[in-house]
Amino acid sequence: MKLLISFILVFSLGFTTITKAEPLASWQEGEVKQAIINFVKKTTDRNSNDFVAVTDRIAVFDNDGTLWAEQPAYFQLFFALEQVKKLAKDNPDWKTTQPYADILKGNMPAHMSEADLVALVMKTHTGMNSDEFTKRASSWMSAAKHPITKKPFTEMVYQPMLELLSYLREHDYKTFIVSGGGVEFMRAWAPAVYGIPAEQIVGSRIASEYKVIDGKPQIVRLPKLEFNNDKAGKPIGIYNAIGKRPVMAFGNSDGDREMLEWTKAGAGARFSMLIHHTDDKREWAYDKGSKIGGLDKALQQAKQESWTVVDMKKDWKVIYKQ
Amino acid sequence: MKLLISFILVFSLGFTTITKAEPLASWQEGEVKQAIINFVKKTTDRNSNDFVAVTDRIAVFDNDGTLWAEQPAYFQLFFALEQVKKLAKDNPDWKTTQPYADILKGNMPAHMSEADLVALVMKTHTGMNSDEFTKRASSWMSAAKHPITKKPFTEMVYQPMLELLSYLREHDYKTFIVSGGGVEFMRAWAPAVYGIPAEQIVGSRIASEYKVIDGKPQIVRLPKLEFNNDKAGKPIGIYNAIGKRPVMAFGNSDGDREMLEWTKAGAGARFSMLIHHTDDKREWAYDKGSKIGGLDKALQQAKQESWTVVDMKKDWKVIYKQ
Repeated sequence: MKLLISFILVFSLGFTTITKAEPLASWQEGEVKQAIINFVKKTTDRNSNDFVAVTDRIAVFDNDGTLWAEQPAYFQLFFALEQVKKLAKDNPDWKTTQPYADILKGNMPAHMSEADLVALVMKTHTGMNSDEFTKRASSWMSAAKHPITKKPFTEMVYQPMLELLSYLREHDYKTFIVSGGGVEFMRAWAPAVYGIPAEQIVGSRIASEYKVIDGKPQIVRLPKLEFNNDKAGKPIGIYNAIGKRPVMAFGNSDGDREMLEWTKAGAGARFSMLIHHTDDKREWAYDKGSKIGGLDKALQQAKQESWTVVDMKKDWKVIYKQ
Repeated sequence: MKLLISFILVFSLGFTTITKAEPLASWQEGEVKQAIINFVKKTTDRNSNDFVAVTDRIAVFDNDGTLWAEQPAYFQLFFALEQVKKLAKDNPDWKTTQPYADILKGNMPAHMSEADLVALVMKTHTGMNSDEFTKRASSWMSAAKHPITKKPFTEMVYQPMLELLSYLREHDYKTFIVSGGGVEFMRAWAPAVYGIPAEQIVGSRIASEYKVIDGKPQIVRLPKLEFNNDKAGKPIGIYNAIGKRPVMAFGNSDGDREMLEWTKAGAGARFSMLIHHTDDKREWAYDKGSKIGGLDKALQQAKQESWTVVDMKKDWKVIYKQ
């Protein structure tokens, strides 16, 4: 019995001395970090007027430029370029057709119109079944490196945002990705990287159809953009997939403006945050006028409507995943 | 210290004597109940060859005729009929236009074509913002009664299926509704009734657009069917919303055939189940040729592909929620 008592006491003491890691450790002390903590505290405290029921604790995150980097081009484009090389033998005309000829020579295509880009995505993202596409995306992601940093793309996710995702989940917020990127592309790698399951990823979507081919039921991907989950498409994507207005929303560009606006306009406590890319040493500095992740109107609106703005250079101790 | 020891012992003993309620108590002992239990056991046992990781444990349920009754008409139709009465004063021409004239006289419209039905849904389900629609659906559901049983519709959910949902969730299956019904209609009441959150409900969908009206950001519902989550639409709805092929699927009609087929055809252990309405005393008996919930081709395929078939009369001790 003595042994049992000792065991119980040791176990109890041991248990109480486990201390939690400091939340948001990579965020500098200051207004922004405090704003996050205050908001989470008041919305999860039963005695607060701003308490939010667990079922309504929805937090949505843009991906490109918000959870990971997006320069010098959206990372999904690098996947598309690599696929062009793999598909070249079945498309001999690409040797003499732009932008494919440039891509096959290993050059970044210089001037691609929106229509060129959509055509490139259709050529490289459709025509196969869903399992085959997932295999290609996973396989690319496991080997690919960023052209400038030489890091795997999955290491170019932001450490402060990983901590924020964990912090919110510890407080029973359900975290979703709501991105202009392709939903099936993200689902191939984002669950392992962010701890966000496939069914909590909302994105742009190509059309698909159900078919039984050679006795095998499957989803076939069709060369048509069905839903563009960007700008005013983001609130619609959220409404269709989640059915609730989020309580917290995080973005970094004018493509996130409507999502942040809609979130902040909900009844009760709401939190909208913009990540402002201000660090040209550790990452990239850009906003208004940037072709990728342009930020202008949303930054003005942030001031008028009290959205929280992260100054990456000032507010983040580290940038990339540690 | 003695007190502490006593306390610990009593607490431990008390703890071990808590016994779980028998799972699936409303299911008759027999092949069907055993098939469910065996499948769940083998897919959640780490030492089984059929073990399924928690992240892949997706179980999808049709709603009408699978989780609740669907006779003499889909319950959402009764909501639409009630809305016609509410909207009549703004539509004076309805007094002389069919099917509205019949509906306003309190008669079930006799012969409605598919086009009539879609028009009726558009008139009664769109033109307002998302919050207003949810309010109308919730308000109707809290007061409405079934025309034959006189029960609230939310009490016409099947007790054995409620137990099955709980049983699966206790084994870390994530449960989803995948219904031909309107997703926004279901989201207004299904979370409280089935314990399935709004974001795990997939359904048919009308188009909507994001608008700022009088300074208020909102989602406006448009009179256009955007996605029909029925038949071959079900696997597509699942792929778009969840991004994974389910491990278990439950349906009751030919509208569920493709969902059950696609699920069962996946690699590894898969389970597809049909609920066969065979009980004309306690519920309704119908299959082939029924206008609502017709079941013919799927029942044949169930035999060929070893789907499990529930005989409601034989396999369920009780029908409705107790």
